[in-house]
Amino acid sequence: MVDTAERVPSATPAAPAAPSVPEPGPAGASPRIDVEALGRQLLGAWAEARLASRELSARPEMQKQEGLSVADHRKRVFGQLKLLVEHGQVHRAFPKSLGGGEDNGGNIAAFEELVAADPSLQIKSGVQWGLFGAAVLHLGTEQHHKKYLPAIMSLEVPGAFAMTETGHGSDVASVGTTATYDPETQEFVIDTPFRGAWKDYLGNAAIDATAAVVFAQLITKGVNHGVHAFYVPIRDANGDFLPGIGGEDDGQKGGLNGIDNGRLHFTGVRVPRTDLLNRYGDVAEDGTYTSPIESPGRRFFTMLGTLVQGRVSLDGSAVIASRIGLAIAITYADQRRQFTAGSPTDEEVILDYQRHQRRLLPRLATTYAAGFAHEVFLRKFDDVFSGKADTDADRQDLETIAAALKPLSTWHALDTLQEAREACGGAGFLTENRITSLRQDLDIWVTFEGDNNVLLQLVAKRLLTDYSRKFAKADAGALARYVVTQAAGKAYHGTGLRSVAQTVRDFGSTARSVNWLQEPATQRELLTDRVETMIATAAGRLRPASKLGKKAAADLFNSQQNDLIEAARAHGELLQWEAFTDALEQAPDEGTKQVLTWLRDLFGFGLIEKHLAWYLMNGRLSPQRAQAVSAYIDRLLTRIRPHAVDLVDAFGYGPELIRAKIASGAEAERQAEARDYYAERRAAGTLPTPEKSHKSR
Amino acid sequence: MVDTAERVPSATPAAPAAPSVPEPGPAGASPRIDVEALGRQLLGAWAEARLASRELSARPEMQKQEGLSVADHRKRVFGQLKLLVEHGQVHRAFPKSLGGGEDNGGNIAAFEELVAADPSLQIKSGVQWGLFGAAVLHLGTEQHHKKYLPAIMSLEVPGAFAMTETGHGSDVASVGTTATYDPETQEFVIDTPFRGAWKDYLGNAAIDATAAVVFAQLITKGVNHGVHAFYVPIRDANGDFLPGIGGEDDGQKGGLNGIDNGRLHFTGVRVPRTDLLNRYGDVAEDGTYTSPIESPGRRFFTMLGTLVQGRVSLDGSAVIASRIGLAIAITYADQRRQFTAGSPTDEEVILDYQRHQRRLLPRLATTYAAGFAHEVFLRKFDDVFSGKADTDADRQDLETIAAALKPLSTWHALDTLQEAREACGGAGFLTENRITSLRQDLDIWVTFEGDNNVLLQLVAKRLLTDYSRKFAKADAGALARYVVTQAAGKAYHGTGLRSVAQTVRDFGSTARSVNWLQEPATQRELLTDRVETMIATAAGRLRPASKLGKKAAADLFNSQQNDLIEAARAHGELLQWEAFTDALEQAPDEGTKQVLTWLRDLFGFGLIEKHLAWYLMNGRLSPQRAQAVSAYIDRLLTRIRPHAVDLVDAFGYGPELIRAKIASGAEAERQAEARDYYAERRAAGTLPTPEKSHKSR
Repeated sequence: MVDTAERVPSATPAAPAAPSVPEPGPAGASPRIDVEALGRQLLGAWAEARLASRELSARPEMQKQEGLSVADHRKRVFGQLKLLVEHGQVHRAFPKSLGGGEDNGGNIAAFEELVAADPSLQIKSGVQWGLFGAAVLHLGTEQHHKKYLPAIMSLEVPGAFAMTETGHGSDVASVGTTATYDPETQEFVIDTPFRGAWKDYLGNAAIDATAAVVFAQLITKGVNHGVHAFYVPIRDANGDFLPGIGGEDDGQKGGLNGIDNGRLHFTGVRVPRTDLLNRYGDVAEDGTYTSPIESPGRRFFTMLGTLVQGRVSLDGSAVIASRIGLAIAITYADQRRQFTAGSPTDEEVILDYQRHQRRLLPRLATTYAAGFAHEVFLRKFDDVFSGKADTDADRQDLETIAAALKPLSTWHALDTLQEAREACGGAGFLTENRITSLRQDLDIWVTFEGDNNVLLQLVAKRLLTDYSRKFAKADAGALARYVVTQAAGKAYHGTGLRSVAQTVRDFGSTARSVNWLQEPATQRELLTDRVETMIATAAGRLRPASKLGKKAAADLFNSQQNDLIEAARAHGELLQWEAFTDALEQAPDEGTKQVLTWLRDLFGFGLIEKHLAWYLMNGRLSPQRAQAVSAYIDRLLTRIRPHAVDLVDAFGYGPELIRAKIASGAEAERQAEARDYYAERRAAGTLPTPEKSHKSR
Repeated sequence: MVDTAERVPSATPAAPAAPSVPEPGPAGASPRIDVEALGRQLLGAWAEARLASRELSARPEMQKQEGLSVADHRKRVFGQLKLLVEHGQVHRAFPKSLGGGEDNGGNIAAFEELVAADPSLQIKSGVQWGLFGAAVLHLGTEQHHKKYLPAIMSLEVPGAFAMTETGHGSDVASVGTTATYDPETQEFVIDTPFRGAWKDYLGNAAIDATAAVVFAQLITKGVNHGVHAFYVPIRDANGDFLPGIGGEDDGQKGGLNGIDNGRLHFTGVRVPRTDLLNRYGDVAEDGTYTSPIESPGRRFFTMLGTLVQGRVSLDGSAVIASRIGLAIAITYADQRRQFTAGSPTDEEVILDYQRHQRRLLPRLATTYAAGFAHEVFLRKFDDVFSGKADTDADRQDLETIAAALKPLSTWHALDTLQEAREACGGAGFLTENRITSLRQDLDIWVTFEGDNNVLLQLVAKRLLTDYSRKFAKADAGALARYVVTQAAGKAYHGTGLRSVAQTVRDFGSTARSVNWLQEPATQRELLTDRVETMIATAAGRLRPASKLGKKAAADLFNSQQNDLIEAARAHGELLQWEAFTDALEQAPDEGTKQVLTWLRDLFGFGLIEKHLAWYLMNGRLSPQRAQAVSAYIDRLLTRIRPHAVDLVDAFGYGPELIRAKIASGAEAERQAEARDYYAERRAAGTLPTPEKSHKSR
């Protein structure tokens, strides 16, 4: 890095000129961000719940204590759960009749913010109230609510959510655990008949849980009615397993070690008929099965759908973790200096290096996009669960959005935390600077509550289904019309695709305006077109499947699996882009709006740059325009750079929540001390002169 | 994932046809891999040292014990270092006169394999013998060797390598620590005059080290002669700091917690004149400075260059970590089943899913490429350090190769271990399955021994320098000639660029052969052309720099920084590709060679796919050819998939080194048990029938 100037080649042949690119935004303008007002916008609809949760998360007794043994960390977190109860922080979503708040959005918002305290505390509370308790609430009926919820809410009965098995995680419909109805005694008999059917990876199961909601194949009168949930006590007051029940500790994990994950197995365990959580399926005394939902498939998906809040809240807390990581790395990068590039004595602030900007600022843009998308997602969730907008279609849309956004935000969090770690160098590796700890705890975010790849495949299937419904009886010409028609729907409605306003096929040639790159319509068209075309292409390739046998059809589908998952990802990216664009209208003032618009452009063009090969291969962008995309991104980086610290400050996490020494101002102090040291000695003439360089190298 | 076949749209408009792509390899051939013979090839030139080190790594007492406290892990690792001494495993590189082996290649090979035991043990031994000891060996002279090396070799004196400071990591030339010569007492006075000048992140420094090699600005007669190394005792026999010396513990880290990293500071610490490690610079009794290397810049780089072995060995052990991660994930993916796609009852093995192949097999190909490149690199290192080929040019080439390969392999290891973790789902998160532990320990690999981004920038500058030397006095026409001339050199010679054999500008139109995709020349031309063109383009853009002031020139350079780093990465990728291609000639038999050739193609076309936008924008590939690249990769995946397990078995790591329960065969047993359970009940007619599906969904 030394001697950059003198190593620059001096007489090289003419190189291709850089593409001509417009300057982002009004020339000469130097906008300012209203950090506080932007912070309020970012807090969203449930600001109060978020602020209350942050206040709690800022208390030392609620925070992760690093370096504890697994056993001690587990004890500490269990104690913290009791504090949550004492502070009344966990009952927001439960029925008012039981002392709850029936506030679904606020409940999730408050929960999400707990990630800043300790992800183990957060996820363990999620197991207790968001999975175990929520299963009783949503899959049970009044009798179960009265009988079980009070003790769950008060933590008197800690519980496990016994769905996943060692042998079946993604494919829950195929779990091996059975619940066979015995009309003689009017009981269900729960069994895990082979090792693969053991319940596994269950939070609370290794130590604390005295009960569990167990998912099992409901068998009565010789018929398997598919997976249902049962309330099952598992331990006695001494913490010993009840008869027929056993288990194992999952032991140490890559993170989240404050949670006692474990395995459970059941042999002939009998529970009363009435402990079937019977909202979506019931068994009469004589063993007759009834359900309000006729189709077993739809019933299963409806039951799982009531638990979508796990995906909602992971999406939101992944965004918060990204914000914390970037707040640390950008604060540090704005103070840390290394190498003298443009001055004989003063070292450069590392955020002024182009590469460092390229590493951090696009991730900042994505974090903003994911945050705005999450807010839309959370409102949609609240609408459905409050009953404001709760049709079947609403629920299906909500699940599709969940399946699209959770993978993107959780992968983004891991990627961002890793880049933040690396951008802080050796300091980033010290636990005192928080990033590695946060990343380790978030690692499993991409797997639990639905493996990211499996979720994206669900999204792709939904997109294919919608597509095929539209064209089930249409001819080939319908595709072209589909692509060019402006749909009435908005993003987050239906599959969330806002169709393009002009003929996509002509797009490359018609979009000739000078400020083409600055038009949001350009980004929308490019992003939307890609999703639609990818789905249409895959649909076309899958067309012969209907004439094939099961095996051949499966092989054909498998040959398109990767492209379909990429299409689903593109769909999720479009949702994020639309949410960001909509949020610009809520910006508190023009200056803030200008900077956010650059940031949205950085996000949008970042996506286009990432998929540039697709746009080129499919004739959507000419090579010349494609080159302008990267050059425009470089311009945006220099425009956004002066606002980078404001943009992370607006996240609203103070030192009590950031808790990283390098982001505390210590680095700036160190730099000042060193600068003063050299300046004083230079002034006094006591600085040794450097040995004369012969420049022979 | 359920119901894939029935959800496939049935009547969609015609989609674009898949591009026509040749079948990889001879039709109908079903090659076999000779796993044992391939394993021998992979062991490379220092097979014996590797096998001895693996044997040691397989002993339980040498292996990482998970769940230890930081304090206990440190103690265990220090004990393991003593075992290494007892087993005679650490003296290979030291002088024969002192009981060493003077075997540089074998020393590195043995060291690399220790990563399988415990990365903390490995890196701590690297600090002791590869940094502290090697600095005395390479920067000191005979007197220092005799006086200090025996106690270093025996671990009687554990030591720290005190180069990095809190304020300066990447820019070592600017460290703040001073060593001022005092002719009165014939001593150097060592000072860390401000907080940023404290030595930091030093292995051994927090507890064990009783001495250190300290890097400081050598000042004599009022002149600063730049950074030199000094041997400095730091603790007494009781473990207390000597007068003038203090320190801090860096505390818990994101990984490698068996190493006691810490900080050291010095105030007026006096060492005898003769404890300057004086191979490249000395101070006479009267304070007169002399050096065999006139240029201070070249002297500094020469001194640092003697420590290149750190980068060599990280490159090699990153490859080993990737191998272990893939061995776990691929073994598991070949046994684990989830979802019935093509059968009513049998679930699919997850490695048969296209997406899973896309996640793991390209990373397997890159791991092979990185392994072969490392072997070439290690031989080059041995040639230089044994004196077989030790010119200035050889050393510079070695450093450029190190700076190109270490970033690629260490990033690849983190990426591969993460994907392996995710590919194993929840099981991958359990510490008993090893992957998270390995990834946490390797996190800092991308930062230490040279931050990856900084190293790649060094590579870019070397490429620019070579380029500008060629064209210093040439006209524009020289560029075209440069690009089209076939160079006599081989990869790893000079900058490692093997120039292309035909006119690049005409490439897109001239390469018309039907089997174009199967020709290695295609890959070589595309990969080489990209490096050359990127460097030429950047050089052209930097051309005005010579007429600019320091600040403006630095700004211009900064505007090209990202592209330059990407060019350096492309250069490293080309080195890997060339090494893989050369290694095909050493394949033990035709079957093995065939599979390895597919794997090399997967690596090569994977690189081209990753950079497809560049090839399209620069007119090197037509859109049609570009589409064929991805389609060809899909074909290669299905060809390679049956050999995936053989390819990881050939790495030669048995269960005693893999140490992951899920890769032990437990999964296959579980699958068999479940299958038997259902088959028996199906045969006996006792399996409950599924509720009749209405297919309404």
